[in-house]
Amino acid sequence: MRLDSVAAFDAALAELPAPDAAMRAAAAARQAQLTKPAGSLGRLEEIALFMAGWQRDARPRIDDGQVVIFAGNHGVAARGVSAFPPAVTAQMVANFTAGGAAINALAAAAGLSLTVVPLALDQPTGDITREPAMSEAECLDALDAGAAAVRRGTDLLVPGDMGIGNTTPAAALCAASFGGTAVDWVGPGTGVHGAALAAKIAAVDAALACHADATTPFERLRRLGGREIAAIAGAILAARHARIPVLLDGFIVGAALAPLAAARPRIVDHCLAGHVSAEPGHTRLLDRLGLAPLLRLDMRLGEASGAAVAAGIVRAALTAHDQMATFDQAGVAEA
Amino acid sequence: MRLDSVAAFDAALAELPAPDAAMRAAAAARQAQLTKPAGSLGRLEEIALFMAGWQRDARPRIDDGQVVIFAGNHGVAARGVSAFPPAVTAQMVANFTAGGAAINALAAAAGLSLTVVPLALDQPTGDITREPAMSEAECLDALDAGAAAVRRGTDLLVPGDMGIGNTTPAAALCAASFGGTAVDWVGPGTGVHGAALAAKIAAVDAALACHADATTPFERLRRLGGREIAAIAGAILAARHARIPVLLDGFIVGAALAPLAAARPRIVDHCLAGHVSAEPGHTRLLDRLGLAPLLRLDMRLGEASGAAVAAGIVRAALTAHDQMATFDQAGVAEA
Repeated sequence: MRLDSVAAFDAALAELPAPDAAMRAAAAARQAQLTKPAGSLGRLEEIALFMAGWQRDARPRIDDGQVVIFAGNHGVAARGVSAFPPAVTAQMVANFTAGGAAINALAAAAGLSLTVVPLALDQPTGDITREPAMSEAECLDALDAGAAAVRRGTDLLVPGDMGIGNTTPAAALCAASFGGTAVDWVGPGTGVHGAALAAKIAAVDAALACHADATTPFERLRRLGGREIAAIAGAILAARHARIPVLLDGFIVGAALAPLAAARPRIVDHCLAGHVSAEPGHTRLLDRLGLAPLLRLDMRLGEASGAAVAAGIVRAALTAHDQMATFDQAGVAEA
Repeated sequence: MRLDSVAAFDAALAELPAPDAAMRAAAAARQAQLTKPAGSLGRLEEIALFMAGWQRDARPRIDDGQVVIFAGNHGVAARGVSAFPPAVTAQMVANFTAGGAAINALAAAAGLSLTVVPLALDQPTGDITREPAMSEAECLDALDAGAAAVRRGTDLLVPGDMGIGNTTPAAALCAASFGGTAVDWVGPGTGVHGAALAAKIAAVDAALACHADATTPFERLRRLGGREIAAIAGAILAARHARIPVLLDGFIVGAALAPLAAARPRIVDHCLAGHVSAEPGHTRLLDRLGLAPLLRLDMRLGEASGAAVAAGIVRAALTAHDQMATFDQAGVAEA
């Protein structure tokens, strides 16, 4: 789908498809016949039903799972809000392309393909403490690039981020969408403490004051977000319309959903939370999104790394659902 | 190793090898150079160091991970403590062999081999409410069968259980080893409630009263345990002496360790807790063992199912540790 106008974005968010209730029920009927005490696979059973509903298949599969990393640079990074210099964004994109980053290893281990989408890395967004991150055209370009990156036939979408400084706009998006001030949402990110952390908190409060009149999902993304953040939102929205289930990574990916979810809470219905990160605001964010994470491993890397680990759990759930024998087939007595 | 006499068992428990500190340190030095903020892979980094120490390799691998399911029957099952009839133990062993159980799918998804070891299924143990579960010879046979099942060259051992009624002896072992009464350790198991749950609690309290004078690890295993439980203990002890890391499953596997850990807390040093099960006593048990679970998915199936899912996390950790580029290799600036 195209997200090339504000009207198209608003329309996509207004009409969210639902999962297939009949396929979900068929999957539940199958679960009840498998050789195990009822409910004993816990969340693995829920995952199988969730995937059945969105893939519209009583025996869902991951044959073409896709990690997509969106990368962008942030004007606010010049305010010393990150432990790393902005040049690292492009260096890490090169690392993704060369196969040396964590997500390369983790996507391969999970049997997922990896797409890398750098977004105008030589043009950092505006400094959100005093101006909008993006023009309307820039934000639409990012949203549309996100939608375009979702491959046809993908059966699980795993969006991720790379962008030095991006926990700052992420915290601002969360506060603007769900309330609270900077201290409620700002954390150490890649590892800032002391004066740098104070500068980060001040930057988020300044951004919130500067953009207090941004109240729609689009305006919040445009004024407080970033290119990779808008692209993630566009990818998740496009996946919904293609009924592709989404596995969410950490704080940045959740923050990209925040302005959409504040207006339309059901935007998360096709999403599983892969993990809760060590970034403190992520716990609060998942609570506001109404999602329970599959993993809690104190990860805080971004680049879809936590979600890629969680993809192994989703795959395990579907493998058990698909391959187990029924009580009848195995000649096992029921309770 | 052989565990064919009480003296051999006691000696094995008395002299527990330590991990290789130098290989662990070499792995930590490598972690510090990989292209990510320090510590940002959270527990994945800890797992890589743990595996390096036990595999004695700075770049540990899982090339020959082994799930071993031990199966046994329990005299106390005649007291109505389970939702399933005892015949299901043998039926499930047939299901494992035919490839239709959850663990078949989950082991395959995790790239682990599966060994099934049925232990005298036609001879249930004694009813622990009024007699020892096993004679000394029977318990030694089970311990030794456990040790013998650990394949030479295995680089990750994942022991599991099958035994209708076995949450009852497991609860008794936990209470005898770590204190408390039946209500502190008994839960629904495969799904007992009401009168059956009351019968289960009464059975555990009766067993504790009958065997209050069993105070050594061997005597507790022999009098309150079961064949598959003793075999799990034997396998974990043998793995320690071969420096094979172990990934623990749920309540039964943990309970098999309880009498050993009460006497020698460091028996768990070569073990990772794969998950915490929905069985309420398992949370308490992991706390007493000093282990933090990798997963919390409300699973309660046994047969190594939770640990097999967790094996995917261990594999992801090792893949990232092995395959990621260093800052120097990738030309990425450090913090």
